[in-house]
Amino acid sequence: MFFIIGLGLCDEKDITVRGFQAVKGATRVYLEAYTSILMVQKERLEVFYDKPLILADRDMVETQSDTILNKADVEDVALLVVGDPFGATTHTDIILRARALGIPTRVIHNASIMNAVGAAGLQLYQFGQTVSLVFFTETWKPDSFYDRIKENADLGLHTLVLLDIKVKEQSDENLARGRKIYEPPRYMSVPLAVRQLVEIESIRKEGVLGPEKTLAVALSRVGGGEEQRIVAGTLADLAAQPEDAFGEPLHSLVIVGKRLHHLEVEYAETFAVDRERWRDIAGNVYGCALD
Amino acid sequence: MFFIIGLGLCDEKDITVRGFQAVKGATRVYLEAYTSILMVQKERLEVFYDKPLILADRDMVETQSDTILNKADVEDVALLVVGDPFGATTHTDIILRARALGIPTRVIHNASIMNAVGAAGLQLYQFGQTVSLVFFTETWKPDSFYDRIKENADLGLHTLVLLDIKVKEQSDENLARGRKIYEPPRYMSVPLAVRQLVEIESIRKEGVLGPEKTLAVALSRVGGGEEQRIVAGTLADLAAQPEDAFGEPLHSLVIVGKRLHHLEVEYAETFAVDRERWRDIAGNVYGCALD
Repeated sequence: MFFIIGLGLCDEKDITVRGFQAVKGATRVYLEAYTSILMVQKERLEVFYDKPLILADRDMVETQSDTILNKADVEDVALLVVGDPFGATTHTDIILRARALGIPTRVIHNASIMNAVGAAGLQLYQFGQTVSLVFFTETWKPDSFYDRIKENADLGLHTLVLLDIKVKEQSDENLARGRKIYEPPRYMSVPLAVRQLVEIESIRKEGVLGPEKTLAVALSRVGGGEEQRIVAGTLADLAAQPEDAFGEPLHSLVIVGKRLHHLEVEYAETFAVDRERWRDIAGNVYGCALD
Repeated sequence: MFFIIGLGLCDEKDITVRGFQAVKGATRVYLEAYTSILMVQKERLEVFYDKPLILADRDMVETQSDTILNKADVEDVALLVVGDPFGATTHTDIILRARALGIPTRVIHNASIMNAVGAAGLQLYQFGQTVSLVFFTETWKPDSFYDRIKENADLGLHTLVLLDIKVKEQSDENLARGRKIYEPPRYMSVPLAVRQLVEIESIRKEGVLGPEKTLAVALSRVGGGEEQRIVAGTLADLAAQPEDAFGEPLHSLVIVGKRLHHLEVEYAETFAVDRERWRDIAGNVYGCALD
C-alpha cells in the first residue's frame, strides 16, 4: 500500500492518529522537502516517529516517483506532505502513476490552508477561486491573478491569495554552468505581496485593489498556536506594518469580498490594525449593515 | 483554555495528535451531536479517549454556550466537532462569546469536506463559491443555489454542493403540541440531490444543469478508507445509479466547471460510471483537450 499522508499546517503533532499509525507501519517513509523547510526539522519528526525519514524534493516526487513507489505493492510505503495531499499542491501525478503500476493507494487527509483560512473568521462558503502570486522580477510581472480576483470581487466573493515560495532555485550563473548550488529558500511576505498587488492596480486601474478601500486579512502559521498571526486591515494598513508583524512564513492573504456579513466583520475585527477604520470601510465602502 | 477540536471526516483515528492530547488534558469534553451521528458512536470515542463525553446538540452550542464555557478561564474545556471548526459549519459564535468572557481559545484544525473534496481529483484552485442544497417540500423549493452555480459555471469553475442534513427535527404535530419527540435523522442522498437539481433546471431552463451535458462527481465518506465512494458521470448517469452505489452518508456533490484540465479528467475517469461518456462530454461539451 502507498500512503500519502497530510501533516497539517504546523508541527509534528498535527498529524492524525491514523497517519501516525501508518508511518509507524511503513517500511520506508519519504518526507516531501517543502515540509521540513516550512514547519519542523526532519530530525524532530524522526524523533517523534522513532524512525528515519528519506527527504524527497519536488523533482523526485514529480519525475522519479517510481523510486518512491518501489515495492509499494508488497510493502507499506508512506509519503509525508505538508497540509493536505490535495491542498494547494496536489499529488495527483504520483497517485496516477501508482494506479498505472497496480499499487493500492490511500490518502490520509489533514487541514490545509484551503480550509484553515477560515480561522480569519471569513466564511469558507463565500470564497471564490484561489489565486497564486509569484515573485515579480524586473521583466516578469504576471498579472492574471488580477482578473481572477476581479471575477471573485464582481460576485462579492473573498479571494485566498497563496504567496510564492522559492525552494531549490539556482542563480542564472549556477544554472548556466550546470552547478547544483541552490539559493536559500525565499517566502513571499505579506508586505511584499501587498506592494505587488498595488503595483498591478496602479497599472490596470480597474478599482479591484484600491489600497485605501480594499479590506484584506493576512494569516501566518495558521493552527500553530503561539506562532499564529492574523492581521486585518486595508491593503494600505497591511503595507504599513513592519515585516515582523506577520510572523514567520508561510504567509497567506485574503482579499475580502463585498458580500461580507456583519458577523465576519465582527469576528475579524479582533485582528484589525485599526478597528475603527476596519468597521468604517466595512460599513461605508462594503455596505455591510453593522450595529 | 477553551479548545475547539476538529475530528476530521471519518472515525476516531482522524483526530490529530495535538487534538488527542488536548482531549486527554481537558476536565470536560463536549461532543457536538452531529458528530456522533455522522461518524462513530459516542461510546467508541469514549473508549478511544478513555474519558466520558458530554453530548451537545446544535442548540446547546448556539444558545447555551455559557454552559460549555463555564470555568474555561481556569480549566481546560474541549468541544469536539466533525471536520474542521471553520469548515462547512462554523463555530465563530461560541468563539466570540468566549472572547467576550475573556476566555482564551485555541482551534485545532483538521480536514473538512471543503478541502478533502480534492480527493475527486479536481483542483481546489478551480472551485468557486460553495452552495448548500436543502430538502425540497411540496411547497418550498428554494433555488438560489442555481444562481450561485451559474455564477461559478460562467467563470468555468467547479461548485461543491453540500447536501442537507436533518437532525433533531420535529413533526408538525409534535411541534404544535410542544412534545420533544424527534424524527430520525435524514441525510440527502446523491440521487435525490440530482433529482432536485434537474427539477430546478427544468423550471429555470438556463442550461446550467442539463442532465446529459453536465459532469458531476459524487463523494461519500471521504478519507474513510474502505467506506469512501467517489462516483463520476453526467447528472443523468448519477441519477440512474442505485442508491447504494454512493455508500453511507454524508454525501457531497461537485458540479464540474468548464475550465476543466485534462489531468482532472484523467484522474476522475477512474471513478466514472461510463469512462467513454465521461471523456466524450469532457472533450466535446467541455472543450477539454484530451489525448
